[in-house]
This record gives sequence, structure tokens and C-alpha cells, in this order.
Amino acid sequence: MTASLAELARYLPHLVLRTEPGDLEHYGRDWTRRWTPAPLAIALPGSIDEVQGIVRWANAHRVAIVPSGGRTGLSGGAVAAHGELVVSFDRMNKVLGFDAVDRTLTVQPGIALQAVHEAARGHGLMYPVDFGARGSCQIGGNIATNAGGIRVIRYGNTRQWIAGLKVVTGGGELLELNRGLVKNATGYDLRHLFVGSEGTLGLVVEATLALTEPPPPCNVMLFALPAMDALMRVFGECRRRLKLEAFEFFTDRALHHVVAHGAQNPFETASPYYVVTEFHENETEALAVFEHCLESGLVTDGVIAQSDAQAAALWKLREGITESLAKYRPYKNDISVRIAVVPDFLDAMQVLLTREYPDFDVVWFGHIGDGNLHINVVKPAHVSDADFIAQCETVTKRMAAILHAHGGSISAEHGIGLVKKPYLASARSEAEIALMRGMKRVFDPHGIMNPGKLFDP
Amino acid sequence: MTASLAELARYLPHLVLRTEPGDLEHYGRDWTRRWTPAPLAIALPGSIDEVQGIVRWANAHRVAIVPSGGRTGLSGGAVAAHGELVVSFDRMNKVLGFDAVDRTLTVQPGIALQAVHEAARGHGLMYPVDFGARGSCQIGGNIATNAGGIRVIRYGNTRQWIAGLKVVTGGGELLELNRGLVKNATGYDLRHLFVGSEGTLGLVVEATLALTEPPPPCNVMLFALPAMDALMRVFGECRRRLKLEAFEFFTDRALHHVVAHGAQNPFETASPYYVVTEFHENETEALAVFEHCLESGLVTDGVIAQSDAQAAALWKLREGITESLAKYRPYKNDISVRIAVVPDFLDAMQVLLTREYPDFDVVWFGHIGDGNLHINVVKPAHVSDADFIAQCETVTKRMAAILHAHGGSISAEHGIGLVKKPYLASARSEAEIALMRGMKRVFDPHGIMNPGKLFDP
Ligand SMILES: Cc1cc2nc3c(=O)[nH]c(=O)nc-3n(C[C@H](O)[C@H](O)[C@H](O)COP(=O)(O)OP(=O)(O)OC[C@H]3O[C@@H](n4cnc5c(N)ncnc54)[C@H](O)[C@@H]3O)c2cc1C
Ligand SMILES: Cc1cc2nc3c(=O)[nH]c(=O)nc-3n(C[C@H](O)[C@H](O)[C@H](O)COP(=O)(O)OP(=O)(O)OC[C@H]3O[C@@H](n4cnc5c(N)ncnc54)[C@H](O)[C@@H]3O)c2cc1C
Repeated sequence: MTASLAELARYLPHLVLRTEPGDLEHYGRDWTRRWTPAPLAIALPGSIDEVQGIVRWANAHRVAIVPSGGRTGLSGGAVAAHGELVVSFDRMNKVLGFDAVDRTLTVQPGIALQAVHEAARGHGLMYPVDFGARGSCQIGGNIATNAGGIRVIRYGNTRQWIAGLKVVTGGGELLELNRGLVKNATGYDLRHLFVGSEGTLGLVVEATLALTEPPPPCNVMLFALPAMDALMRVFGECRRRLKLEAFEFFTDRALHHVVAHGAQNPFETASPYYVVTEFHENETEALAVFEHCLESGLVTDGVIAQSDAQAAALWKLREGITESLAKYRPYKNDISVRIAVVPDFLDAMQVLLTREYPDFDVVWFGHIGDGNLHINVVKPAHVSDADFIAQCETVTKRMAAILHAHGGSISAEHGIGLVKKPYLASARSEAEIALMRGMKRVFDPHGIMNPGKLFDP
Repeated sequence: MTASLAELARYLPHLVLRTEPGDLEHYGRDWTRRWTPAPLAIALPGSIDEVQGIVRWANAHRVAIVPSGGRTGLSGGAVAAHGELVVSFDRMNKVLGFDAVDRTLTVQPGIALQAVHEAARGHGLMYPVDFGARGSCQIGGNIATNAGGIRVIRYGNTRQWIAGLKVVTGGGELLELNRGLVKNATGYDLRHLFVGSEGTLGLVVEATLALTEPPPPCNVMLFALPAMDALMRVFGECRRRLKLEAFEFFTDRALHHVVAHGAQNPFETASPYYVVTEFHENETEALAVFEHCLESGLVTDGVIAQSDAQAAALWKLREGITESLAKYRPYKNDISVRIAVVPDFLDAMQVLLTREYPDFDVVWFGHIGDGNLHINVVKPAHVSDADFIAQCETVTKRMAAILHAHGGSISAEHGIGLVKKPYLASARSEAEIALMRGMKRVFDPHGIMNPGKLFDP
């Protein structure tokens, strides 16, 4: 144990601290697994006071802190590879309160997203942010990345559901931001600044989440599409005629992997593209949309779920993709453009990726109703890790240029972290990045909060 | 013309500059009319380039800038009383574009809110932020104050409808924030920082507004309530059983003023409290809610509009209040608490105001479904302006303490400006205010942007 760590243990005698190699490895990395974990230690605070104590100690000893949620992050934001202290919220994972009139749930940051869903459901309400990692990602991590997911099209990102936030800044101050108010016009909204700040300004130590009424019963429908240019036209029809809760797409390669991983393919013949969509129950109109799309040649086949089990099976085709690819540690792009720009942009991507990855397994999927496309590239066995990443980085550089030309973003929802740092300048101007650096200095004067993530100091 | 102003005229030869006394007075004040206008001059830029030129000049000459919208603001944010250059957006008031797929409208900052409504309607869509000043307030002012209004209960504040923002910072940089993307996880969201910043960080020079589908046809209903403690119980019933678009309240004193100003009172007998509510058409359920409330003694009378004209007449009772009081230049409080806290808080306010203003005409109304209460105090003829304001300020200090104890806010939607500056510390901690000052220095290094508003440097 280093001298400074011993000092921390003395200063906060009840703080749970771990330094076993297995823990350092477990807590030092996230879903990316590209960097070798090498944290100083893992701190598992049990209270806000302990978090403040840790930050005070870290400032005094100039030790870097990496805030750690469920480490399902896909951008390396929670990676600790340079002797940082990982602050994990695994022990701060409780529901603190529910307010039936305000319809808010107050929680500690380490609570899993799924536990939030269950708590909300227990009160007859819904927390609408949702995606595949729900079982292991934490609300603190969701807030720090402004997580999106499969229901953004109707409910927006995490940002929209944060009624109040307690944070400990890099300077060690505890801030109580907005306190659950609907209306509060008293200067800069620091709450919105912390949402999506990837742990670089401070630590989220408590959140008050707005809940909403659950939607009416929904239908889930799967379409098979013959060509990419049908995608946004089917979206247009669905959006116009149905009350959409989700509109997701994936390719035949994605279907291949998810089926190999245990999901059930409902179609007999293959199609290049698929859409899964959920909407407020209206089978008649849904069938009319389907007929219309079929006649116009926009879709070639379709299934509508007849039971909850079938709906879950259709959803699994989309939601199981990331999981089914995990063993390959694919190289991931998570990009977005305005919805109107999607068709042009998909064409440009098609050209780029066919040219650059002629022999690679390239899997497309994503929240296309939000203009958000995920690209996962699988490393062929005969290529080395280093060569593979180098080649993908070259392609990402080109992609960033195309995105810039299309007014798009190099990170739609996963955040910049370490993975996207080289491309930040394609989405944010030099002036903006300089302002962000200046803001970080205001909140974190000694630069101890997640240094090297998002941008270099 | 001062030397520096002559220099500005040379530097930007096409810039419209005004220095006539009538213009200085007109553009130097807002709806508050408490300060004597004394700006240096009025600049009416016609383009973003000109705005940037003005800011460059202002930095070189250390001249303060006051951004100016429709000057319907109620907190003195747009007041220029110390030789500032007022930058008015009256000439930058056009719709720049509409995107049917993204459902966004791109506008210049000087466009009136009502013109935005009309443009959206012309495309079969709706911009849902709405309130009484719609005819004269400007979208730039709405963004700078994060304006709320009568539909927050369903659609949220201005913040929620800003898909993209162009701003010129106090440092003179033009930033293009978010560019209309639904998803963009690339660092700190500066767009949300500018929303509600009251012109202290920079100037909003363009906005891309998200639009939505208009609601189904609605009913408008007016209730008469026998007592204040019925208010939130009626709200609970309405929210549970109807799809609310608005839920507003006012008192008999408010009704008195608005009727004296030309509105029509539909009731024969007086009641102490009234509610006007709008909801998705469902007369059967609405009548059931009314019957239930009547039987429970929560309401004593009610009207449901049978035509658009009647609906407008009912709305006028609520929307005409501010206008009907304008001639008295009432002292205004605009306060909020969490919805669950409203009943307790109203009791505390009742006690405070009865004790402190035994002989004054105190008018209550507001967006009570959001926990937002407006209090307007009318100056009695025999009291001097100065004495009146001094007395009201003393009461506001007590109110701020009660708000602090209830976790509430001294400015729900009007902003801090000059009027609420002494009370900022009741809603935001010292640490938060210090951080806000630090952020201002990052965006506005020479402190030229609306100095003295929100907080002192
Ligand atoms: C199968 C799968 C599907 C996914 N689908 C989606 C999706 O649809 N949409 C989406 O947006 N993301 C998705 N992700 C990515 C990921 O789940 C999200 O980014 C999630 O929000 C991360 O939460 P976490 O708790 O795992 O955060 P971590 O990975 O632990 O951390 C993420 C970032 O937040 C910071 N952080 C964590 N906790 C705190 C805290 N308390 N205070 C301050 N900073 C903190 C970390 O330092 C890091 O920078 C998916 C991931 C997987 C594995
Ligand atoms: C009858 C009436 C009813 C009202 N009802 C409501 C209501 O229900 N809800 C509500 O929220 N408000 C309400 N208000 C207050 C007011 O209308 C809002 O605050 C409105 O948003 C102000 O817009 P404006 O263009 O008049 O801004 P101004 O008064 O001109 O300015 C307000 C602030 O914004 C800044 N500003 C203006 N334009 C820009 C720009 N382009 N860039 C940067 N900063 C800028 C100014 O410097 C100032 O600090 C009401 C006012 C009246 C008179």
C-alpha cells in the first residue's frame, strides 16, 4: 500500500478499499477491454461524506479519480490504466425515496438501471430510459454518459429525466442541483452540465429521477427490408401512422450473430435489412402500414408479435446483438446525423466501408429513428489486434470527415472517453473544446477527475 | 456620439445604430420599468457577422453589451441603465428554414414567439412553448430565460425544444451548438448552458427549434374553488383522469382585475379561487371529474367551453391578468416549489402575506400544476414608489427564507436579472454561485456581457 493510500485509509477508517489484483483488474476496465487495467486501488464509499472525503484526499495528494459505474461503457470512460483511484458506487445502490405527487424516485448512483425500472413499476409508473445493458449499467454511469437507448424516439435521453442531482465536484464541493423542481430559473443549469460530462467534472452521488405513466399496451413488429433506401421511408410511414415507442434497425450480419448466439429467426428467407418497431397497440393500422409498404416494395416480409413472449423474442433479435458480438471485442462506431440526412449518410457509409473493409465482417444496427447508427467491425482471426485497431482507426478518421461534412457526430450516445478522443474535433470546434477545458478547470482545479478522458488537459 | 461609438460605426458601416433619446428610452428598459434607461446606443445588427463585429469592438473598448429581445422580461434582464450598448435583434427576425423529416424550424433570434407558432402551424406542426407575451417576446429572449408558460405541464420549458443553437460568446467566438442532432454525446452540452443564461455568457444569434404534432382537439374548463386546500386535490383528480395540456389557477382578486380590464366573468357568484384547465377532448370524463369534485366539496361551480370563442374567453381570464395589472406596475414574485410541497407552501405564503400586506391588493395566480406561483402586489396610491418597493423587498427576503426551507426557488421562470439578484443565494449555494462566476469568466473574459445581471462580477 502506498503512503498516500495508507493515509486515505486512516483519514476514512470505514471506507472499503480494495487492492487485490483481481479487483484491480475487474474494476480497472470497462466493456472496451482495450487497455490494461492498472489502478492504484478501488474505493467503495458508502456515503456522500465518504465520497467528499475521498475527493479531499485526492486533491491533497494529487491522485486521479476514475468514477466507476457498471463499466458497461463502450468508450473507455471508466478505464483506470495509470494508477488512478477507482471510485465504485457498488455499495451506494439504494432507492432513497419516492414521491407520488411529484412522480420522482430518488436513488443512489450505484443502482442498476433495471432496479430503477422495477422500483418505478412498483409504483405504477415508468422510468423510460432503457437498453440492453440494463441489468448491469448504473444510473450514475447513465447520467455521466447521458445514455440513450431504444426509447429515445419517444422519451428522449437520460437528460430529460433528471429532476435533481447531487454531485461532488472535483474541487470537493457537494452541490444540490435543482432539487426536483419543475421550474427553476436561477442562473446556469449545472445539472445539465453534469449530465454527459463523463466523470470529468465530479461525481454523481444522488439523483432524483422523473417518472412517467407507462404507455398503453404495445405491439411489436419486425419487418424485412430489401434495400437500405427503404429504411427511412418505412420509418416515415410508421411515424406518420403509428404512435412509435421504438424504431430500431439491423442488418443480415447482425441477425446472423444474434441467431448464432441463441435467438430465433422468424423468417424463412434472408433479407439484407430488418426493422423492429414498437407502437401503441393498433393492429389494424399496423397491418395497413405493412400492406402499404409491401405493395410499394419497401418491405418483403413482416411479423407482428401475438404474445409477450413473442414480443420479447423479436426484441431479442435487436437487443442481443452487442452481447452476441462481445466475444470478438469488435471495433465500434456509434455515430449520428440529423434524421433527414440519414439516407445520404448511409450511402456514404456504404461506399466507405465496402471500400475500406472489403474482407471484414461489418455489422450495422442502431437507433435509426434518432439518426443513430452503430457499426461493429469484427477482427478476422489472421489479423493482429494492433493492426486491426490501426486499420479501424484510419477508417474512423475518414468517417469523422464524412460526419463533419454531414453535420453529424462521432459519438451519438456512448461518449468520447478514451476511444473517441482523437475525433472530438470533428464534432466540436476548437473554440468549444477550449471552453470545455476552461470549464473543467473551474470545477476541477487540480485536474483530478478522470483525467485524459474526453480531452487531454 | 462618443469616440468609441464613432469607431463602431466606422468598423461596421452597415450596422444600424440609434442614439435618439426616444430610442434609448424605448430599448433601455423592459416590462419592469423600475430603472431609468440610460444606454450608450442601440445597435440593430442584420447578420451574425455584424453581431461578432459588435462583440469584437465591445471587447476592445470594454463597452458592456445588453442583449435585447422583446423586453417583456419581468426581472430587468434587458435593462440598460449604465451606458451599455443595447444589441436588439428586431432586424434579425426571419424563419431561415424548415425540415419536415427532422421536424425543426430554424429561426433568427428576433422572431416573435407568435410568429414561430404561426410558422409551425403552417407546416401542420406545433411549437408548444406558449404564454401571454407571445405577440411581443422573442425567441432569443425565451431561450435566454428558458421561458415556461402555460403548457409546461405537458411539454416542458423552452430548453426541451432547442435542437440547435448558434451563439456568439462574450469572447467573440461563434459556436454552433448541437446542430439539430437528436443524439450527440461529445462532451459538455453548451447548448443547455446558454439556455437560461440571461445574456450573461453571450448572444443567441440563431436557433433550431424542435416542433411536435399538435394535440387532438381539446376542451377548456373553468372551476370555482371554495378554498385553497382544494387546489392540489382538484389537480390530482384532473391529472389522474384527463390528459392535461394546462392547469392554471388564479384568485378572486385576479378575476376582479381582468374583468375590470374587459374580460367576461361566466359565474354569478364569487369564489375565492379559480382553475382553468385544458385537456384532450373527453367531455364525459371531464363531467365525471367535475361531479366528483362537486360532491367532495372541492369545487362549487364550473363551466366547460362549448366553442373556440368560449374557450378563448375562459383563457382570457387567466392570460389577461398580467396585462390587466400592468398599469399599476405591481411588485412581482415568481416562485416555485416541488408539486408535493405546494399545499404546505401555500399555507405558509398565506400567513406571510396576510401578516405583511394587510392592506395591499395582493393578486395570486400561476402555473400551479408545475408548482409555480405568481404573486403581484399592487401599490396603494398613498404609498410612495420607494417605500412600496422597500416594503416588498423586506417581504421577499422573508419569502426567500420560507422558500429555502421548502426547497423552492425564488425565480421559477422569469429569471434573476436585476430584480431577484439579492435573493439568488436562497436558491443556489455559495459554491454554485462561485462556479457560475468562474464559468462566466471562461465565456466572457472581459465581463462585457450583461454585467450586473444574475450576479455581480
Ligand atoms: C449490451 C450493451 C448495450 C448498450 N446499449 C446502449 C444504448 O442503447 N444506449 C446507450 O447510451 N448506451 C448503451 N450502452 C453503453 C453503456 O451501457 C452506457 O453508456 C451506460 O450508460 C454506462 O453505464 P455504466 O454504469 O456501465 O457506466 P461506466 O461504464 O461505469 O462509466 C461510464 C462513464 O461514466 C462515468 N461514471 C460512472 N459512474 C459515475 C458517477 N457516479 N459519477 C460520475 N461519473 C460516473 C465513468 O467515469 C465513465 O466515464 C450499451 C452497453 C452494452 C454493454
Ligand atoms: C403578459 C406577460 C406574460 C408573461 N408570461 C410568462 C410566462 O408564462 N412564462 C415565462 O417564462 N415568462 C413569462 N413572461 C416573461 C417574459 O415574457 C419572458 O421572460 C420572455 O421569455 C422574455 O422574452 P423577451 O424577448 O421579451 O426577452 P427580454 O425581456 O428582451 O430579455 C430577457 C433576457 O434575455 C436576454 N436576451 C434577450 N434576447 C437575447 C439574445 N438574443 N441572446 C442572449 N440574450 C438575450 C436579455 O438580456 C434578458 O436578460 C411574461 C411577460 C408578460 C409581459
